[in-house]
Amino acid sequence: MATSAGDAPWIAYPGDYAIWQGNRVQARRVERGAYLSPFWPQYSHHSRVWFKRHFTLSRPETVRFDCDGNAQVCCALTGQVMSAVTNVFTVPAGTNVFVRIGVENSRHPPMIRIDGPTVRTDSSWLVEWHPDEDAPAEELRQFAKANEKPSDWRMRRRLESPVCQKSICGDHLFADFVRETYGYLRFRNVSADGLVRVIYGESEDEALDEDITHCDSWELLRLTAGDEFVAENPHGFRYVHVIPVDPDVSVGSLAMDYEWNDLPRKGSFRCSDDELNRIWDVADRTLELTCREVFIEGVKRDHWVWSGDAVQSCLMAYYRNGDFEGAKRTLWCIRGKDPLKMHLNGIIDYSFYWLIAIRDFDLYAGDAAFLRQVYPRMKSLLDFVSGRLDENGRPAWRPGATPYGDDWVFIDWAKEDLHGKEGVCSFEMVLYARALESAAYVAERVGAKDEAAAYLSQSRRVRDDVMRTFWNDEKGALMHLLKFDGSLSGQLTSYPNLFALAYGYFDADRAQRVFEGVILNESITSFQTPYMRFYEMDLLCGKGRHGQVLDSIKSYWGGMLKEGATSFWEAYNPDEKGAEHFAMYGRPFARSLCHAWGASPVYLFGKHFLGVRPTSSGYSSYAVEPHLGSLEWMEGTVPTPRGIVKVSVRKDHVEVVGSPDGTGTLVWNGQTRRINPNARIALNGEWQ
Amino acid sequence: MATSAGDAPWIAYPGDYAIWQGNRVQARRVERGAYLSPFWPQYSHHSRVWFKRHFTLSRPETVRFDCDGNAQVCCALTGQVMSAVTNVFTVPAGTNVFVRIGVENSRHPPMIRIDGPTVRTDSSWLVEWHPDEDAPAEELRQFAKANEKPSDWRMRRRLESPVCQKSICGDHLFADFVRETYGYLRFRNVSADGLVRVIYGESEDEALDEDITHCDSWELLRLTAGDEFVAENPHGFRYVHVIPVDPDVSVGSLAMDYEWNDLPRKGSFRCSDDELNRIWDVADRTLELTCREVFIEGVKRDHWVWSGDAVQSCLMAYYRNGDFEGAKRTLWCIRGKDPLKMHLNGIIDYSFYWLIAIRDFDLYAGDAAFLRQVYPRMKSLLDFVSGRLDENGRPAWRPGATPYGDDWVFIDWAKEDLHGKEGVCSFEMVLYARALESAAYVAERVGAKDEAAAYLSQSRRVRDDVMRTFWNDEKGALMHLLKFDGSLSGQLTSYPNLFALAYGYFDADRAQRVFEGVILNESITSFQTPYMRFYEMDLLCGKGRHGQVLDSIKSYWGGMLKEGATSFWEAYNPDEKGAEHFAMYGRPFARSLCHAWGASPVYLFGKHFLGVRPTSSGYSSYAVEPHLGSLEWMEGTVPTPRGIVKVSVRKDHVEVVGSPDGTGTLVWNGQTRRINPNARIALNGEWQ
Repeated sequence: MATSAGDAPWIAYPGDYAIWQGNRVQARRVERGAYLSPFWPQYSHHSRVWFKRHFTLSRPETVRFDCDGNAQVCCALTGQVMSAVTNVFTVPAGTNVFVRIGVENSRHPPMIRIDGPTVRTDSSWLVEWHPDEDAPAEELRQFAKANEKPSDWRMRRRLESPVCQKSICGDHLFADFVRETYGYLRFRNVSADGLVRVIYGESEDEALDEDITHCDSWELLRLTAGDEFVAENPHGFRYVHVIPVDPDVSVGSLAMDYEWNDLPRKGSFRCSDDELNRIWDVADRTLELTCREVFIEGVKRDHWVWSGDAVQSCLMAYYRNGDFEGAKRTLWCIRGKDPLKMHLNGIIDYSFYWLIAIRDFDLYAGDAAFLRQVYPRMKSLLDFVSGRLDENGRPAWRPGATPYGDDWVFIDWAKEDLHGKEGVCSFEMVLYARALESAAYVAERVGAKDEAAAYLSQSRRVRDDVMRTFWNDEKGALMHLLKFDGSLSGQLTSYPNLFALAYGYFDADRAQRVFEGVILNESITSFQTPYMRFYEMDLLCGKGRHGQVLDSIKSYWGGMLKEGATSFWEAYNPDEKGAEHFAMYGRPFARSLCHAWGASPVYLFGKHFLGVRPTSSGYSSYAVEPHLGSLEWMEGTVPTPRGIVKVSVRKDHVEVVGSPDGTGTLVWNGQTRRINPNARIALNGEWQ
Repeated sequence: MATSAGDAPWIAYPGDYAIWQGNRVQARRVERGAYLSPFWPQYSHHSRVWFKRHFTLSRPETVRFDCDGNAQVCCALTGQVMSAVTNVFTVPAGTNVFVRIGVENSRHPPMIRIDGPTVRTDSSWLVEWHPDEDAPAEELRQFAKANEKPSDWRMRRRLESPVCQKSICGDHLFADFVRETYGYLRFRNVSADGLVRVIYGESEDEALDEDITHCDSWELLRLTAGDEFVAENPHGFRYVHVIPVDPDVSVGSLAMDYEWNDLPRKGSFRCSDDELNRIWDVADRTLELTCREVFIEGVKRDHWVWSGDAVQSCLMAYYRNGDFEGAKRTLWCIRGKDPLKMHLNGIIDYSFYWLIAIRDFDLYAGDAAFLRQVYPRMKSLLDFVSGRLDENGRPAWRPGATPYGDDWVFIDWAKEDLHGKEGVCSFEMVLYARALESAAYVAERVGAKDEAAAYLSQSRRVRDDVMRTFWNDEKGALMHLLKFDGSLSGQLTSYPNLFALAYGYFDADRAQRVFEGVILNESITSFQTPYMRFYEMDLLCGKGRHGQVLDSIKSYWGGMLKEGATSFWEAYNPDEKGAEHFAMYGRPFARSLCHAWGASPVYLFGKHFLGVRPTSSGYSSYAVEPHLGSLEWMEGTVPTPRGIVKVSVRKDHVEVVGSPDGTGTLVWNGQTRRINPNARIALNGEWQ
């Protein structure tokens, strides 16, 4: 056999692996003893696909062939077939020799790997599930080796013990695992077969509350007697409370298998403020817990992949450890397949966030193959959106699409009603315009120039419409809602203004008025969720308000730390006290205390303080514009697909080591320097 | 817990179980050492569905709940959830209490079973995979028990030994298993690990031919040393030839696990002619081999479910053993799901045969729930057909739909070119008209009266068009082809005439001319395949030519027996000699010697000689019109969904025992008698 590098990737129908993994992960939501399924449609992988490619070979090539599945390994070449047993076949010499491989697998997505010198799998292969359509194959980059089948891939596990455990209320067992964690409980020295009720708590209050209508996260487990019983389903928790249900069952002690995606640590941040360092660490932990096979919103409750949450997780992951593959799986999982039957997660804004995230992904990850694979699904999503516009071409709220009864206008969890059931929200219009810009960007990148121009012109139309229809010159702001009767409601919120400002949709004069009159106006802008804080902080940094942002981070995220947080929360209101912090959705412990959208400091420190960001696809060019804010010093690393960028900043000195590939620009105190690959650049000068 | 009968069926999304089983079965095609995948799209089961039903209960009901899958067992009631552990939940008392159960399963179709006195699974449940659509749930009737999960169901196996085995050519091993069989080879006393080549032969010539370009059915197997090695993949064969590839490997002896669907034997036929009895037995064996999880066309080669073949298998199965569930699985498997991307199996006629088969299924099986489930897919298939009609509303040949390059006009394997690539075939028009009639019948049965009328009027339009456009009064026949230039080609074939006659589309005068001038004209009607013989014999019986049909059966099917057939063949030409019988498709052994469409005598004897046939849905009424043809006597049983009908006929005496349910009409020698349930009716009178 001809030699080969042994590093060819597995390939699959685009998105199918992530959709399959996403279904598995989302099936883990067990709440109050019962599995809860996402209310949006779950798609299936294609059971049989054809992988196809032409090769021109001057001599025959014998290649190693692997196939993932329980179906027969299969291969059909034009006029030539191979045996399923040997895992080797020979492609004859010739011009444009057609290799076509059909794989059937009902259980997992069909996947193949071919590792010859010329004939090898990669994203230049095409894959079809029906003859009308050729999709570009997707490489599964975490799985290069023949003996690692993508469907067998599991995250790492490690045994962990609680810091303390004790008997309470006679025969109950209570354990504290020190900090928020996720995994599989181990019950040791189980005395007899029988049922126990396990209450998982992110707070001690939650674990100790035995009212099963109070605690969200409990399950009945049927233990079997013996040295050790390992729970089949993983849970997110810090505290565990085990209550025997059947009389003879007792448990000696508890431990757990912690499960996480063990990727190299590439991003880092350290600065002169220890509280901020702790915030970075807890944000990092929050992401370690929630960035899994796909990026889930929280580990205790949902396990669902919500677009609005996940696109923030993606941006954080780009700075935390550069898990571009995880981000890509997450984006596929959110999008699913066609036919589309409702907005992503049933939420209009979430469809737009997903579209916007594709451009961001390309800037950070630079994955041209992914753009080719995903662009058809951007188009069909935008077609779906178009089909639901009102007679004026606006994304109005629409009834009857979900079990909730309508297209959900979410925007944010807030005290006031944001959901726009009486008309069109300007917020949705602003996101729609940005989503169209993202589609235009991707269309351009995949060579669909006419479509790019059309999307750009649609985006311009929507932007103009927003400004013409929603601008209230007296208030100096976009109003929230255009009512069905054609009049503007009196509601003024920061949301549309914040986003339109961030996207550069205002002219200079209006931008100034909105920034000062709305964004900096605490009577208008006061978010309850880290989710919206993310966008607010992002904008404030963009406006050079780094000091103010540091203050906010210290008071808001630092506030959670002072309440004992070991991971960041779904919502935080400094005015609340004690167990009030755990309540949400009308239930005393429904709030998630490990919520991905709480981890934004990882993103903010990397992008706006270390100041590293891509300026073209995949960091082929990038900027480094450090800002100390009120800090004495800071240093850190930012992962890119071209290697790590290292930044170290003192008040009078900045030092950058460029990534091994790509060209950077250092901006510091008005000075600008080119950063060559791997080069070390240092600049002196007092920080201003 | 309230008592329950324990017999509630499992339910699933309609068709998903059959589609999943069909994918498994069709993945078994291994030919010349390589798996060959069907060229038409394979559909997937929905990974997550919601089962839904309202119940009105005067007191709470605690029910047994089972779920098929590796995902968490799950249940969500409005305002109430259940534990996954106990397999029991309680539905509260009330009016219209909504039970909604989400089940996720990527590996198999999600299925549930609830076995309470009132709250129990059946086809009155609805099932959705997305909120736009409520489909009626499908009952899986072969799987009533909780401990028999539908996805675990496997056919029965039984150890069988060859009648003789011997060493040949030194170290080769050769075995003869007496007759055509199917299953998993057992290699005993394997001396060492290593490769062997196994040549499976339906004929001795095939098994002995070591040229791997000649034999279709061979594979390389890597044996492991030991007492016994069992092959993973089943094959169809009579002879086996094992050739060591690796030097040290030798095999002591061979056996096999025969695999078959072990259903009760309900249909039978015996008569005064022993050759016909042997023909019935060999046809029965042919069907035992090919009627499996789904009805496949042949056991050696295809394993694919071809519509034209399978709808004949269904009709045979109705008479052989009343395997209505198998027929239903087969019909689902052929149809697959939406979106439709090509004609069923890529063949225009095969789409029409499937539509026609639904009405036949209802007549024989009487399954109103199935009609409700399948009617939407009849509609979408007819929409697909409509979208491909030419500008005159005719189902023309169309290029570019399959890897073969076009919508395939198959009709039959014949010496002349039937495939109509130059225009529109009248044969396709006739089938289209009949398919529309079938759709009208089903629409009527599911209460869609307006749609029924529309389909009927379309059918009438197509029939009128056929008669107006293709009738050649000089020849007294429908011509074969309308060319793209609008003129009729001179080609005259029996196919459109046979089918139009069978469907009653000619007026009396034309019918007479066609029957005598085309059907009985051997220079026009001379079929090479049992496939078309099926329809020819069916028509001749309908025209009272029972004696002629018996002669044909004895010469054609009897001819195969004389050639040593132990199952019936894909094609038979009495003029061929020796190994010529094994050749097809340009390869010396490509002909299938166990082909379902060869088994039509089972159908013909039951329907036209014993004379039992349904006259309304599911044999609620039926006719018994025995015809002895040239026989002295015959007796037999015909399975119906309402029990068995027993018929015994002598020249001067007929005796019928009616099925336990349903009302029959005995017609004998001009006399007519009502057959009451379970009643025995006897009539005397010399056969005329």
